[in-house]
Amino acid sequence: MTTVSNGVNVQALLEARDALKGAPEAAQFVWKATSKWQNGVHSTITVKEFYGLGEERAHRKESVFDADHPEVFAAEDNGITPIEYLLVGLASCLTAGVASVAQNRGIQLRSVEAKLEGTHDIRGILGADSDVRNGFNDIKVTFNIDADASREDIEALVAQSQKRSAVFDALTNPTNVTVEVA
Amino acid sequence: MTTVSNGVNVQALLEARDALKGAPEAAQFVWKATSKWQNGVHSTITVKEFYGLGEERAHRKESVFDADHPEVFAAEDNGITPIEYLLVGLASCLTAGVASVAQNRGIQLRSVEAKLEGTHDIRGILGADSDVRNGFNDIKVTFNIDADASREDIEALVAQSQKRSAVFDALTNPTNVTVEVA
Repeated sequence: MTTVSNGVNVQALLEARDALKGAPEAAQFVWKATSKWQNGVHSTITVKEFYGLGEERAHRKESVFDADHPEVFAAEDNGITPIEYLLVGLASCLTAGVASVAQNRGIQLRSVEAKLEGTHDIRGILGADSDVRNGFNDIKVTFNIDADASREDIEALVAQSQKRSAVFDALTNPTNVTVEVA
Repeated sequence: MTTVSNGVNVQALLEARDALKGAPEAAQFVWKATSKWQNGVHSTITVKEFYGLGEERAHRKESVFDADHPEVFAAEDNGITPIEYLLVGLASCLTAGVASVAQNRGIQLRSVEAKLEGTHDIRGILGADSDVRNGFNDIKVTFNIDADASREDIEALVAQSQKRSAVFDALTNPTNVTVEVA
């Protein structure tokens, strides 16, 4: 029995894993977002509802995000750029994984910080060079973790988090995206 | 000369495209984020600084985001889930593209709304079935656009936005992600 307290209910997650092994249809989630153009390249995006465990559900509260381009792109900088939201997702997914795995392995965490950098050659999106891709060239994540564990154990935590990360998978492997006009 | 007003400074973007054709080093951007674990799977992510056009820059203001898991995952739902941030980025990137292309083509937009759905079999992240991937199964984006244009022209706007979207590329094609412990 672990006595560490990282605030993750690992017992519930292990029970969910067992339960969903026999109920694959309950494991089908649908994450949702709606967006509304404001002006220029500024838009607001709302997230509240999702579907899972066989029914429509909702977050405790609605979250609204602003996205825009910085002034150096001749825009108003009313929010971070769309591509930066991918870094927000990656940082939080890997961090949640570190906390969950640490809890499961009985490792007490004191602090987990990460620094992310995504390099991006903007000639792609501007159409200045058709050999340059539109997205990131690459992304580097550097963790600083203070925990009751050896460096080796900390590196193993991070490796396991990566192995089970939804966002790490979504960025390192292709996903089919369909875009339609209603 | 276009007389429409979607709020996008297309002239500046076309000039940037021409300028960067001859100055590829200035086109190298680095988007940055830092994250801090709070408790459980709750973390906060901060975005402010970035690098581009040859120097360190910053957004007008710092943005801080909360990420967590919903109560159905035995968590506190202090923010949206990490994978939902990918939908936020995708919605805003495609919307910014629609506005930019419309401006360039002289199409006046009245409203641009999108609905996104990402299906996700959570048996992957729970480790319940090793044949199930961790990320989205697929993502569907549905645009509702009111504009001074035919349906055919609106569909062409959306297609061109997709073709030049940083986030669409990042989700549909693999990116190299390196994760390290400092």
